[in-house]
Amino acid sequence: MKHRKLYPKINTVSGVLISTGYCGLKKNSKKDLVIIQFDKNSKLVGVFTNSKTKSEAVRWSKNNIKNKIQAIIINSGNANALTGKDGYNSIKKYTSCLAKTAGCSSKNILVASTGVIGEKLDYKKINKVIPQLYKKSKIKCCSWKSFSESIMTTDTFPKAASRKVKIANKEVVISGVAKGSGMIYPNMGTMLAFVFTDANIPKKILQKSLLYGVKNSFNSISVDGDTSTNDTVFFVSTSKQKHKKINSFNDTHYLNFLRELNNLLLDLALQIVRDGEGARKLIKILVKNAKTYKRAKNIAFSIANSLLVKTFLGSNEINLGRIFMAIGKSYESINQDKISYSIGNINIVKNGKLINKIKTTTIKNCLNKKEILLSIDLQEGKENISVYTCDLTKKYIDINTNYLT
Amino acid sequence: MKHRKLYPKINTVSGVLISTGYCGLKKNSKKDLVIIQFDKNSKLVGVFTNSKTKSEAVRWSKNNIKNKIQAIIINSGNANALTGKDGYNSIKKYTSCLAKTAGCSSKNILVASTGVIGEKLDYKKINKVIPQLYKKSKIKCCSWKSFSESIMTTDTFPKAASRKVKIANKEVVISGVAKGSGMIYPNMGTMLAFVFTDANIPKKILQKSLLYGVKNSFNSISVDGDTSTNDTVFFVSTSKQKHKKINSFNDTHYLNFLRELNNLLLDLALQIVRDGEGARKLIKILVKNAKTYKRAKNIAFSIANSLLVKTFLGSNEINLGRIFMAIGKSYESINQDKISYSIGNINIVKNGKLINKIKTTTIKNCLNKKEILLSIDLQEGKENISVYTCDLTKKYIDINTNYLT
Repeated sequence: MKHRKLYPKINTVSGVLISTGYCGLKKNSKKDLVIIQFDKNSKLVGVFTNSKTKSEAVRWSKNNIKNKIQAIIINSGNANALTGKDGYNSIKKYTSCLAKTAGCSSKNILVASTGVIGEKLDYKKINKVIPQLYKKSKIKCCSWKSFSESIMTTDTFPKAASRKVKIANKEVVISGVAKGSGMIYPNMGTMLAFVFTDANIPKKILQKSLLYGVKNSFNSISVDGDTSTNDTVFFVSTSKQKHKKINSFNDTHYLNFLRELNNLLLDLALQIVRDGEGARKLIKILVKNAKTYKRAKNIAFSIANSLLVKTFLGSNEINLGRIFMAIGKSYESINQDKISYSIGNINIVKNGKLINKIKTTTIKNCLNKKEILLSIDLQEGKENISVYTCDLTKKYIDINTNYLT
Repeated sequence: MKHRKLYPKINTVSGVLISTGYCGLKKNSKKDLVIIQFDKNSKLVGVFTNSKTKSEAVRWSKNNIKNKIQAIIINSGNANALTGKDGYNSIKKYTSCLAKTAGCSSKNILVASTGVIGEKLDYKKINKVIPQLYKKSKIKCCSWKSFSESIMTTDTFPKAASRKVKIANKEVVISGVAKGSGMIYPNMGTMLAFVFTDANIPKKILQKSLLYGVKNSFNSISVDGDTSTNDTVFFVSTSKQKHKKINSFNDTHYLNFLRELNNLLLDLALQIVRDGEGARKLIKILVKNAKTYKRAKNIAFSIANSLLVKTFLGSNEINLGRIFMAIGKSYESINQDKISYSIGNINIVKNGKLINKIKTTTIKNCLNKKEILLSIDLQEGKENISVYTCDLTKKYIDINTNYLT
């Protein structure tokens, strides 16, 4: 399912310098290193994986995110996870190297890593190219496309999104890139995503805006139910634009920005699902009229993470009962005799019973689409959720039995 | 992974009559109906799926299990799930038919079903063969092998186990059959299993013995993390043997029986995992020294249900970090710097860090075995658990994209 044919037009964000290069962490000689520098007035917020086995990169960035951040170093080809103290020390070494070059402290630098878990990260490879990359960035900002490409692992296309939006008549830009394709069932920020705006947003509001946006985007997708050790999303406001001051999250003139930010985050998240390892279909699961949001979410992800549902949706068979099974294995105490569901615009189940007399061809036509909407009505309350997943194909097995080669 | 070459020798259980036949629910003309009758002094207990979308068969049996049970009707080829009231009425019809033939009430008959979810169950097909099956059983008891075969769906071999054990010098028999291959992540009794003994065990002790045994067998396995709508285990004591009275679960002369019962239940459960859809390897996951049993269980199943771990274990690659990821995505608040683990007898991770210098060939030899032991030491407490799973291969996808044909 490679919907994206062209890399989208990404608007430059004033106050952000991008520099990309190759340091030898990827085995295929493709770009594997990015240095991002921001204007000194920038504010940065982030969210990280909730996994209880975090990469050393996530641990470093969590420890330092409260500081004034001037740069981020991102590498692909090595997750720097399961590397213990050695891995953490590696980060000290390469952030110190950039700090010396840029004239700041290593505490002002965050990191993000993606790649194989459990391989030693050789900081010397990174240190070797840092001065040259830093110099390059001062002359010419590298392209966003190059940024997207440098953080790819099993991704088959580079991911990015951009929006222009007005804050009280002043146009500002939001641009972001992301990566991810497998190990996708985020519990705070899927894999890596970096979002930048030239708007001037107070740090508290920036943080709240990111949490709000992540909930309905990166935290509403699943490729395989596996949560990464490295999930990280950073959101940077460079504050280069002069616009009406934002005093609160609920300011009327901030609403537009917030809506576009959410759109952009969902755009990036859906690019990840579309590029789900081996995926051919994007599946939207809408659970509606649940008693609580938590229940709606549990049921939606119980379906999104069911192997039997995902193989069925990737097949040419009509095995509609598997959705019923997946609702039940959420262990949420719903009334099974009130469950109704539809695929696309075809009602399949009414009050816990399969509707007979639906033409096979009608259902097949619906299942053969590249995008499938699965809508579940619990008829018990008012809470709704949408989550996104993809089908499970043999190619997923292929990719993940030949990941290292 | 078809370890089982020969159907095991199953000892007859005095007081149990088995009758098998074909009524047309399976499309391939293979046997799909079993009637089991017991001696009038028999006691029956059962455990059912905890799924919140239960089949009508499970609902019927849950409603009637408190009654004095004289027979069980088991069908394959149709799960009688997602069929609502019509499905429940079907059961009324075919249990009434057997009740009339056998001279009892339909309330004294339990049912179990397995097969496709969301297909109407035509009770007339069953009623047509009931009198003849009943008559046949009075002349000659069908074989246990035929019983095992009649309840198979995607199973590739018939499953059964048998033990002889003494209760204070009196030999008694325990024999059981099971089915299951996909949709296996039980939360009370995987798929279908039926266990019989000619011992005379008081009903309360019978129930406690079953719950105790199921915990470490059917509730400790996972093929694909999907919980069936139909999971059912019945345990019948026909009381035909005269032996020293069992007064309590903890009676010294009952211990032997209990141990053998547990062995038999685990034997049946492991037959299901070995026959996991597309599986080539049996994987035992031992989580030890956890603070609580619940934590050990969550972590063990987080690994057992991880697609990335299961594809790695089925591949020729060494991607050991995925186990670390799977521990973390349990969201249990363990200390990641204390995690150690081994595969077979090779230590892989020590205190949250991959041990370098392990020869690739040593690990490959270990991973190429048909049975793999994964041992995780949390170094934080005293609770241990063993759970069982299998690798995930392309054949799983094959089977589940061509289930209906």
